Amino acid sequence: MDFLEKLMDASRNKSLLCVGLDPNRERMPQVQVPQFNRGIMHAILDLVCAHKPNSAFCEALGIEGQRALARTLAHIPKGIPVIGDGNGADVSASSEVYARAQFETFCFDAATVNPYLVQCSIAPFIVSADGRIFIWCKTSNPGSANLQESVYSGPRASGSARPLFELVPRKAKDWETRSNIGLVAGATYPLAIEKSTQDLSLPSIVDCRDRGLGCRFGSCGEIWHGY
Amino acid sequence: MDFLEKLMDASRNKSLLCVGLDPNRERMPQVQVPQFNRGIMHAILDLVCAHKPNSAFCEALGIEGQRALARTLAHIPKGIPVIGDGNGADVSASSEVYARAQFETFCFDAATVNPYLVQCSIAPFIVSADGRIFIWCKTSNPGSANLQESVYSGPRASGSARPLFELVPRKAKDWETRSNIGLVAGATYPLAIEKSTQDLSLPSIVDCRDRGLGCRFGSCGEIWHGY
Repeated sequence: MDFLEKLMDASRNKSLLCVGLDPNRERMPQVQVPQFNRGIMHAILDLVCAHKPNSAFCEALGIEGQRALARTLAHIPKGIPVIGDGNGADVSASSEVYARAQFETFCFDAATVNPYLVQCSIAPFIVSADGRIFIWCKTSNPGSANLQESVYSGPRASGSARPLFELVPRKAKDWETRSNIGLVAGATYPLAIEKSTQDLSLPSIVDCRDRGLGCRFGSCGEIWHGY
Repeated sequence: MDFLEKLMDASRNKSLLCVGLDPNRERMPQVQVPQFNRGIMHAILDLVCAHKPNSAFCEALGIEGQRALARTLAHIPKGIPVIGDGNGADVSASSEVYARAQFETFCFDAATVNPYLVQCSIAPFIVSADGRIFIWCKTSNPGSANLQESVYSGPRASGSARPLFELVPRKAKDWETRSNIGLVAGATYPLAIEKSTQDLSLPSIVDCRDRGLGCRFGSCGEIWHGY
């Protein structure tokens, strides 16, 4: 089943809430990561339409983190789509391998991608993936403007120069071959979300951690927009 | 010993060659990653001044990848500094955890960082690290200009607007407190390397994979600049 179909199915009669799993041991009220994640998942079972486990927290625990991730994934109900929050990005050969990690090793339904290397880091995900790719666009942090609102005016710039957070989704839309891209944007910049997605029909994960659905113990809320 | 002292020590009477360890099973002439990495390390023992294992390749192999990385690290001679090529970047709380993974879990002497989230992703590495942080600047891929040569001209732009690959190192230099940053730049853009590092006294990893020292089986060459 296509990622969006799965998402629509999962969100029917529920909310549009996607819940990130970011188990930070220093903030968790218990030691065992799989049990902690399971507790969160159980508490919101009737509300959530997607989960997004974050690779950083798994990586920081080494082999134990890999096991914890596997056990967490095994507990996510079958109908709930899972987005690997790995933020993978590198030159092509390595980006291919990041994509393989997300879609083959962990079997995520979707994955987040950082666009700093532009096509080079995004295209391997688009090509290799049966899943969906969510590309970072305008992030929720206060200082994001310095980079993400910059404008390219070099040799191949189009007539109407756009800030990067608008340019990136448009470029990605040109490269996709199977309508499998989406965006990640911060709820702190609602206008930016509108501008990024305008006319593109792209689903977006709207990161609400700075708008009340924050990381207290190690989970954060996101909502879906535009699908 | 400080990272740069260790690097200078390791490069004395050798070359300035840093060798990335990117064991891509689809290209490797053998199956076992630790043995493959060990073979590379043994062959260039008298030349190399640093190693840079890439997280993507470890991640794609799941638990086996974690074990392979641990065994690889155990075989790197004590005096050779090791740079974790994890490209970690996320909002602050997660970036802190990426930094912990690199410097505490894997005990790398240095780590690569992606600047797309600007201070939010870089600062946690600068603050938490006893090691050195290498920030992506102008990457080696052909399409990097679209993003990395963009210019910020918003409310807090300084008088002389610079492209991002020049702005990022200057911003990072403002945030550092312990002289622990450096850059990663592609050898494909030598002028960009000069411009990025001008007046900053920052050591750089110059990625030569597109200039002859390429990834054939799963290793790539980099040289050091400006230290």
